[in-house]
Parts: sequence; structure tokens; C-alpha cells
Amino acid sequence: MSDMLALTMGDPAGIGPEITVGAWQALHRHGPAFVVIGDPAILARAGGAVCEVADVAAARAAFADAIPVLPLPLGAPVVPGHPDSANADAITSSIAHAVRMARGGEVAGVVTNPISKVVLRRAGFPHPGHTEYLGELCGTPGREVMMLACPHLRVVPVTVHVALRQAIAELGTHDIIRTTRTTHAALRRDFGIDAPRIAIAGLNPHAGEGGTMGTEERDIIIPAIEALRAQGMDITGPWPPDTMFTPTARARYDVAMCMYHDQGLIPLKTLDMAQGVNVTLGLPIIRTSPDHGTAFDIAGQGIADPSSLVAAMRMAAEMAVHRNMS
Amino acid sequence: MSDMLALTMGDPAGIGPEITVGAWQALHRHGPAFVVIGDPAILARAGGAVCEVADVAAARAAFADAIPVLPLPLGAPVVPGHPDSANADAITSSIAHAVRMARGGEVAGVVTNPISKVVLRRAGFPHPGHTEYLGELCGTPGREVMMLACPHLRVVPVTVHVALRQAIAELGTHDIIRTTRTTHAALRRDFGIDAPRIAIAGLNPHAGEGGTMGTEERDIIIPAIEALRAQGMDITGPWPPDTMFTPTARARYDVAMCMYHDQGLIPLKTLDMAQGVNVTLGLPIIRTSPDHGTAFDIAGQGIADPSSLVAAMRMAAEMAVHRNMS
Repeated sequence: MSDMLALTMGDPAGIGPEITVGAWQALHRHGPAFVVIGDPAILARAGGAVCEVADVAAARAAFADAIPVLPLPLGAPVVPGHPDSANADAITSSIAHAVRMARGGEVAGVVTNPISKVVLRRAGFPHPGHTEYLGELCGTPGREVMMLACPHLRVVPVTVHVALRQAIAELGTHDIIRTTRTTHAALRRDFGIDAPRIAIAGLNPHAGEGGTMGTEERDIIIPAIEALRAQGMDITGPWPPDTMFTPTARARYDVAMCMYHDQGLIPLKTLDMAQGVNVTLGLPIIRTSPDHGTAFDIAGQGIADPSSLVAAMRMAAEMAVHRNMS
Repeated sequence: MSDMLALTMGDPAGIGPEITVGAWQALHRHGPAFVVIGDPAILARAGGAVCEVADVAAARAAFADAIPVLPLPLGAPVVPGHPDSANADAITSSIAHAVRMARGGEVAGVVTNPISKVVLRRAGFPHPGHTEYLGELCGTPGREVMMLACPHLRVVPVTVHVALRQAIAELGTHDIIRTTRTTHAALRRDFGIDAPRIAIAGLNPHAGEGGTMGTEERDIIIPAIEALRAQGMDITGPWPPDTMFTPTARARYDVAMCMYHDQGLIPLKTLDMAQGVNVTLGLPIIRTSPDHGTAFDIAGQGIADPSSLVAAMRMAAEMAVHRNMS
């Protein structure tokens, strides 16, 4: 099994090129090693020592001295901060290529640079986002689960990129069960946690305070908790959302299942903006990504922080070790 | 103008008595000084040196040596952890008495110990909570605004103690404007901030991402922002909720206006559980309270942390200084 990671190019007009160079600088001595699938010239322009390679073995050999790149042609010249949908094909090809390599065992996992849904959609990209596209590429659509992790906290939002009103309307017992089961299995397989302690959030203020401020806890969340406990999992909840992310509360669980996007992402980013990692669970491959977007507004200025990408690389490598041991 | 604060008894079966003793221990040398309206025996049982007084002047003189108490008869014996609705009258009388003292200028402000809505409601208390009751007592019902503050962050939820589904349904441009205007005026008058920088949160993930994940930003929040700017206030937003509480983001504003309870309370409590203070803006009097409940589950064990009550006392005293200077 390879210990190399594949890194996608992301949107080349965003901060992807410069954080890739920054991540290589942080990792080239002690790893984890990675190979980029993208345009070598863009990385060189971002200040990287670049080495075009033909395969993963060559990339492995080159990594200590330069950023190894499996070259992929772009559709249009790149101007930092000015995304161009003419590059959408190259952006998605990089992702598809990385997934193929991971599924074939050439790399241990995939780390993705940020993409812009708006830019890709203009070019006809039909998927709601990165994660769903990866589910399609892996032949497991609908099973993917997004986890965000930082050194202090792991969260899994049960509903993700939908309006809050719609998230509440869509929230269902079955989805909570499915997402929690996937998370439980992934924490065991990829994170080395034998008996994951899972905290399930309420939806409403004070978790509904006995039904006086909302009934979703009683009607939707508690039935899911009971079903999961019946399957032998260590489940607590529904927790009042506002007090479940204090240091004392966080010490009691390995992951917080959240009912909507911001319920999980607000505490995570409040605690640790720079080192948050996005992990996709439920795929046959390992996939992580930095917990931020393309940042077109600061692209090309050399001020982007590669910490989250570095953390994503390290987490993917650790997950691969756990998966191989289990 | 008095520099004394009035402290209500709160639910005597909760942690109120012991945190009152703890707050007095922290404050009796350097102040701010306070007088409790409640039962002296309960405070003595919680370990306090207690002194019954007849008025505020006597309380001021006694404070360095003992907890001054304006005595109020209870309706039933108190068992820590076992609230009794027979004490509801005493609990609400303590609040009403404190408000009268503040309105009459006998004290500089009111600090309230935690009450249990469930216990009071059983006895016929018709108000949704503490804050609304204070609005009634002050003759300004419906103008009260809840702000939570810790050393790192101030938040004002525009909707408060309602189910999340209902909070979204109720969210209106007028409420955002009203709440923000009250907050702006209070930051100027009571917090010494001449030109408050006010950040207004979006409702949806990524603040709706241009309408693709919700339309409340466009239809409700942005019109409020434009109206407030037209009144000359320094307003930014709508901010993506998940990234507006990072240290960098927080440095850009004095208060975050939040669209629902947990959007504001999750980051506040994640950052600082122990020193959060609840401040009621929009009343003619100064009122603060600790940012936690009665904690019946640990009452009487001597393990309750008085930090939030101490912080509430200090904040009320600082507000009084600013108000007197302005």
C-alpha cells in the first residue's frame, strides 16, 4: 500500500497554488508526501520548486526536493483572484484522477484543494458540491458524510448545504441514524477509536426544554437516539446546543452530531479557524480537505495560511495508518 | 446616586445561595457592593456571614463584613435541588422589589440570580421568562433586548426563546432594526462605545451564498442593514455565521446581532462558559445576570462556580459608571 497522498489542484485562481507550496514547505522533510494533479507552471509561479512526474513512484522519489506534479492541461490562463469557468474541466478532472488513483491503491488517500461551486456550476457541473461529486466518483452516491475536525472538536452536520428553513423541514430520524452509523464506523476504522462516544445535539434552544420550545427533539431526534442505542452504540443527547461545546462538555464525547450546518461549524471555527479539516466519511477512499474556500479575495498575495491544508494532509495520513492496521 | 447593586434571591433550591456567598467572598473587599433581597437563613446555610438590614444605607455599611440581606419571607422550607412552587411568590417578589429600588434610585442596578421558568409557571407566572417580566415591571414591555457578553464577545439574539422553526418564521426586518437600535443606544450609553461597530449575521449557511441556500438574507436581513446604515450606524453584514466568531472576525465589531438563540449562544459559551453575563438592554434600569440556570442537579454541593455572577456584578457596576458619566 502506498503512503503517498494525491492532492487535487482546486481552483487555480484561488489560494490553492500558494497553500500547496506552503504545505510542501511544511511537509517535504518529514511527510506525509503528496503528488499534485494539476498545472506545474501555476505552482512554480506561486513560488514552488516543481518537478513533473509520470507516476507515483517518481513522485515519491522527488518529494523531498520538489513538489511532484502529474501534469494536467488547463483550459485558460490563470489570473489569481479571477476564476474562469474555462478551467472547470481541468478542476474536475484533477478530482476524478485523484479518486481513480486512490481506488486503485496508487495513493493512500485524496486531499482536495478548494473549488468554487459557482465557477463550476457555470460550466455545467451538476453536483451540489465537492463531497457529493466524490460520492458519485466512488460509486457510492448518497452515502457520504461530512465531518469537520480540529484538535479540540469533531462535528458532523446531519443536514449540510441547504437553507436553515429547509434543513429543519428535511431533518429526519432515518438521516440521523444513517449519518451516525457512518460516523461510528469511520471513527472505529479510520480514527482508532474502538468505542466512539457520540453526542447528539438538539435542534432547538435548550434542546426544546421539554417540548416548550420545539418538538423535533421528541418527534425526530430522541427516536433516533433510542434506535442507535439499541444497536449498542454509546450515544448521549439530545444536548442543549449552546452548552455542548464548552471544554467540559467536549471532554465527554468523540464527535458531536449536529442538526444543521452552522450548529457544528460555528463552534468548530470559533475554536480553531486555522487547523480545521474537512473529512468525508462513508466513501471507500480516504478524503480530507482544508476547512476553507478558494479565498479569491486574497489569492496571489502570498498571505494565505496553509495550516488547514497541512492539517488535512496529516489527518489523511493518520487515517490511512489506522485503516491499514484495522 | 447609589453605587450599590440589588441582588435577587433567584430560586432558593438552585445554586443561587451558594454562588451569592461565593460572589460576596470575591467582592467584599473591593466591591462592587450589593444587597440581597431574600431569606437570610438560606444564605447562612450556604456558608455566608449574613447581616439582616432594613435599608440600602445599612447594607452599604455592612457589606465589608457580611452579606447584607433585606429579608423576604419564604413560602416553604428549601431543600437544595428540589424546587417548590410554594416559593414562587417570594422569588418574583424579590425581583419586583429589586426593580423598584433601581427605579427609585436606591440602587445603581439589579443583578438577578437564576430562576426556573418551569417552577414559576406551575405557580401561575404568566411571563415567558425573567427578561420579559422585567420589561413588565419597568413599564416598558416588549422593548427589552437580551445581550450576552463575555470578555471575548458580545452577542444579541434577535429572536430568543422560541423553537428554531418559529424563530425563522418570526424573523422580520422591523425586529432586526428595533433590536439593533436598542443595542446601539445601550452600547453608547452604558458601555462607553461612542460609535459601536455592529456586525449582523446571516441566517443561512454561508449567509445564503447569493440566494442559493436561503432567501432571508435578501428579503429580510439586507433591508434591515440598509435601513440602519441610512440612520448613520456602522453596520456590516450579513456575515456567514460560521466564520464570524473567529478571533480575526471578532476584532472587527463590538457586537454581533444574531438571528436566533443558538447562533449567538453557541460561540459565546464555546469561548467562555464561566464568565458569560446576560445583560438586558432597553430597560430604564441596569440589569445583568449570570449566564447559566438554577443547576438544581448540583445545588447544595458547594461546587457551583460563582464566576459568572461575579462578572455580572462587575458589568452592572461598570455600566452604572458609564451611564452616570454620559
